[in-house]
Amino acid sequence: MKVALDVMGGDRAPEVNLAGAAASLADFPSLQKLFLVGDEAAIRSGAPAHGLRLDDPRIEIVPSTEVIAMCEAGATAIRRKKQSSISIAMDLVKSGQADAFVSAGNTGACVAAAQIKLRLIPGIERAGIASGLPNEHGTCHLLDAGANPEAKPSHLLGYAIMGAAFSRGVYGVKNPKVGIMSNGEEDEKGTPFTKETFALVKDFAATGKAPFEFIGNVEGHDLFDEELHVCLCDGFTGNIVLKTAEATAKAMSKWLRQALTASPVRKAGALLAKGAFGELKQRASAESYGGSPLLGVNGVVIIAHGGSTAVAIRNAIRVGLESAEQKVNDHIRQALAALDTESAA
Amino acid sequence: MKVALDVMGGDRAPEVNLAGAAASLADFPSLQKLFLVGDEAAIRSGAPAHGLRLDDPRIEIVPSTEVIAMCEAGATAIRRKKQSSISIAMDLVKSGQADAFVSAGNTGACVAAAQIKLRLIPGIERAGIASGLPNEHGTCHLLDAGANPEAKPSHLLGYAIMGAAFSRGVYGVKNPKVGIMSNGEEDEKGTPFTKETFALVKDFAATGKAPFEFIGNVEGHDLFDEELHVCLCDGFTGNIVLKTAEATAKAMSKWLRQALTASPVRKAGALLAKGAFGELKQRASAESYGGSPLLGVNGVVIIAHGGSTAVAIRNAIRVGLESAEQKVNDHIRQALAALDTESAA
Repeated sequence: MKVALDVMGGDRAPEVNLAGAAASLADFPSLQKLFLVGDEAAIRSGAPAHGLRLDDPRIEIVPSTEVIAMCEAGATAIRRKKQSSISIAMDLVKSGQADAFVSAGNTGACVAAAQIKLRLIPGIERAGIASGLPNEHGTCHLLDAGANPEAKPSHLLGYAIMGAAFSRGVYGVKNPKVGIMSNGEEDEKGTPFTKETFALVKDFAATGKAPFEFIGNVEGHDLFDEELHVCLCDGFTGNIVLKTAEATAKAMSKWLRQALTASPVRKAGALLAKGAFGELKQRASAESYGGSPLLGVNGVVIIAHGGSTAVAIRNAIRVGLESAEQKVNDHIRQALAALDTESAA
Repeated sequence: MKVALDVMGGDRAPEVNLAGAAASLADFPSLQKLFLVGDEAAIRSGAPAHGLRLDDPRIEIVPSTEVIAMCEAGATAIRRKKQSSISIAMDLVKSGQADAFVSAGNTGACVAAAQIKLRLIPGIERAGIASGLPNEHGTCHLLDAGANPEAKPSHLLGYAIMGAAFSRGVYGVKNPKVGIMSNGEEDEKGTPFTKETFALVKDFAATGKAPFEFIGNVEGHDLFDEELHVCLCDGFTGNIVLKTAEATAKAMSKWLRQALTASPVRKAGALLAKGAFGELKQRASAESYGGSPLLGVNGVVIIAHGGSTAVAIRNAIRVGLESAEQKVNDHIRQALAALDTESAA
């Protein structure tokens, strides 16, 4: 598998990307080629400090001369900056040279580049980011987590179909359960937007053609303790849910650390129970997830957090490898084709 | 101080309300009178099991014959069910017999009853729920956390003024900082609704009359680690943020418990560090907050979670007592009067 990494993306670029690249080359045997897309001088000068050996035959530096800043409007920036690292890395996927794109850069620009260059899978109106959360019963994906802040109900129906195909094809879930994030679990709850989405998804599920089970409105706790595989939301809400969950987990970890170091006895106890805190971190940390696939485009596109660490970049590259190996888009196309066949019959 | 408690409100009514009533009578000397509003037979039969002595002269049972279910449409239910516990408890505040209303019942119905019976403070267009979150620098209030899911930008400007008056008057914050929950911190981020709100609040702050400092768009982590006192959002978004934060904290606590009991050595360590986990629970649990004030109506109205425990109900009563004692509405009226005076000058 070949991955194109946007070395200039994220708040701590290029450092974390170079360190993440080194870790992924060391850890993932299926990574045959890693394209480092970015400022060549910065890559060459930064590599040694992060243990990245540029004489590794698996590495290929692809120079780019422009950078899209985190605050730029995505679509405009992609149209204007043809030589940006995001544009060039996406071109490598478009041309088939790379199997997956990975970036911690401007999300809007990554989404725009993917939709413009790779184009949408026929039958899909908008791409959506599927961000995984650790659920008691497996992984629950928020969809959309930020690609499409002003979504329409029909976009969310597309997300339901794609999310179900993703859960089934990549996570092996037999009968994916889909819910809608709302301000209460009762059917009557929500805004005009969520109510229209509810009616649309419910009607679709009632036809018996849906590749998922619709469980209605869901709330925060369902993300973690209900058997829920896809949580539908517009990209504004999904982004806020994701960041709130991550921030709460981080605050809890910090308070726990403060409470555990408040006395010598507690410190001794914490030392004995040390393994538990490592497990908690592993389970709750956004770093472990690394990156989220953008579903709905003809190619594998992994979007990592702007604040990604080197560990997060390494894991985003892992998600890119897995998504490409498990052919996530074939599963989505098959789900859409099954609907077409049934409609025609 | 006199408090009217809706004994029939919440998922675990009347039990948790009776137990919470007993705890608050035991713990709060300033609670001179507690009106128990609900089904008289249920109160009389349930009281002994929860240690509630009905011969306590501070208790007065006020019978109600109807209950508003959690799934009913709030405003309609209030108009139809004049004998509901929510209606009758709110009437006690309206008539001046009670200083505060406390309910874990149907939020929409509590908000409708408050707006219809107590009416809005002149100058305020909509009431909003101010839910506190534990922030590094004090308490950050989400406003609105669920009263007004389809808010307009002008409602959020009212929330900014009320939230600032609340932070200053009740929490002693000298210069409250106000932000808008968005999908990124950059000024350009957001939906048409948040962008219009941003412009309105920014323009108001630029007049120099605002009783707060506007810090722009904020994200999840700002709720916990930025000096932020009021986080503006529509009631749909606020409700989702609040429930997501609570659910994440609960999931983290559960995973920590699981990890700490996975081996005898860890269990021994956990025993030594026991005090730390109590502190963490105290700091992170929604129970500690108990209830959230509905700001903008002529009276003290405290809304507790539908899933409240007895501890949460006790703490909601404490919030009701504090809000009444600290005259939260006087602070809001003064802030509005100061604006009027300056406009006239």
